Amino acid sequence: MSITTDQAAVVIAAGKSAATAQSLPPMNIAVVDDAAHLVAFTRMDGALLGTIDVAQKKARTAALFQLDSAVLGTIAQPGAASYTLEYTNGGLISFAGGIVLRDADGHCIGAVGVSGGTVDQDELVAKSAATALD
Amino acid sequence: MSITTDQAAVVIAAGKSAATAQSLPPMNIAVVDDAAHLVAFTRMDGALLGTIDVAQKKARTAALFQLDSAVLGTIAQPGAASYTLEYTNGGLISFAGGIVLRDADGHCIGAVGVSGGTVDQDELVAKSAATALD
Amino acid sequence: MSITTDQAAVVIAAGKSAATAQSLPPMNIAVVDDAAHLVAFTRMDGALLGTIDVAQKKARTAALFQLDSAVLGTIAQPGAASYTLEYTNGGLISFAGGIVLRDADGHCIGAVGVSGGTVDQDELVAKSAATALD
Amino acid sequence: MSITTDQAAVVIAAGKSAATAQSLPPMNIAVVDDAAHLVAFTRMDGALLGTIDVAQKKARTAALFQLDSAVLGTIAQPGAASYTLEYTNGGLISFAGGIVLRDADGHCIGAVGVSGGTVDQDELVAKSAATALD
Repeated sequence: MSITTDQAAVVIAAGKSAATAQSLPPMNIAVVDDAAHLVAFTRMDGALLGTIDVAQKKARTAALFQLDSAVLGTIAQPGAASYTLEYTNGGLISFAGGIVLRDADGHCIGAVGVSGGTVDQDELVAKSAATALD
Repeated sequence: MSITTDQAAVVIAAGKSAATAQSLPPMNIAVVDDAAHLVAFTRMDGALLGTIDVAQKKARTAALFQLDSAVLGTIAQPGAASYTLEYTNGGLISFAGGIVLRDADGHCIGAVGVSGGTVDQDELVAKSAATALD
Repeated sequence: MSITTDQAAVVIAAGKSAATAQSLPPMNIAVVDDAAHLVAFTRMDGALLGTIDVAQKKARTAALFQLDSAVLGTIAQPGAASYTLEYTNGGLISFAGGIVLRDADGHCIGAVGVSGGTVDQDELVAKSAATALD
Repeated sequence: MSITTDQAAVVIAAGKSAATAQSLPPMNIAVVDDAAHLVAFTRMDGALLGTIDVAQKKARTAALFQLDSAVLGTIAQPGAASYTLEYTNGGLISFAGGIVLRDADGHCIGAVGVSGGTVDQDELVAKSAATALD
């Protein structure tokens, strides 16, 4: 099972609401399916251009490994267990903001990636977005 | 002036409505700004995976040259005036489905690219999407 | 011998003057050295974004083969003598607007590439630019 | 608002003057607009070929994140908050020499990137170039 277009829209709307409600910087929010292909993307007005690619790579990272990007970041670092993993798959992101999306049974149906603020802000928005599917 | 997040959402919603109303195959709809950076993207359930990139490249082509992709296609062909133009900028699309978005004064504010059906179906959806800004 | 920074500035200034004097669309003008590495580049206000890469590829094409891009275009076409040549070197341009720059002895010292208008307009500006070194 | 061709020429001339006045190595100076597209570029005679791309990537980095490349460098390092950020967007530069260009109101209008000497020398020239717009 993969996330649907409608579910992706719910995820993105929740992310936008969270960013706005907490007066965070404008964000990019990307949703990919369980095969890491893009389903939906929104850039909020004024989001930094460099973060368009970052948001998509975060979502892609989480879906490809069924692992939140912050977790992958603990192992894909110089000196860590899986150093150089981050260079595979066209480039993974090793910091927070990419969250696996799961169905009621816990199966991965895709992932959401958020970028535009600090790493903590991105993660907060990504978690709010992911929770919208519960 | 560049297209806003809200305008991009209007464009995508109109494209989806057009595809659904006419029972066309599921489409990918991409909106880029006037500098060809992605603003919004939606993949309708079931759209062919290979068309995700095509939709984005169509939008990008139209924005980069302020020219609908179908027009570029008439000149970027073997034997035509600008053969090889299609290989620049990381790959352009030389067939229909990418439409320039303009403001009331006629200035380019971005572009929409649609892919998922036949070229004619893509173009029909792209035009419906673009018209939603009028 | 390769073109100098000062000579490249002369070439670009001449190209800009020619475009302005004849009320042509805003142009991108790129100058590369005899090894096809970029020496100087200018985008005139309003030039189409997609033509930034085209101008550079035209200059690069001319320098790599010591052949104006319009000449290469006659042989690097489907059905022509060197079809597929245009796919080498990261992508060559097979239409006019790239002109070899030569010293007084006829040796190649670099090339200029122009893009922003029609192919004929680009070629006219490129020739005016190249002539400035005489 | 984006930097104009004339403003970019002022920036580059100031960078060249600074490099020459202080007898620094020959530099590459690149100026991009606020969407990270190239506006102008100059390579001073004798500048190392490998630094042509570096200068452009520095300018691109600064514009994409509206952040001087030296600042990005403090966070995009192994062990730092945003390690792997530097691999996004086709490759960013995480050391000094890329400076955001701002208008009188503080809005980003583009960026300048300099490469050819030591990192400190590059940064010095980039700052001199950027200051010319004040």
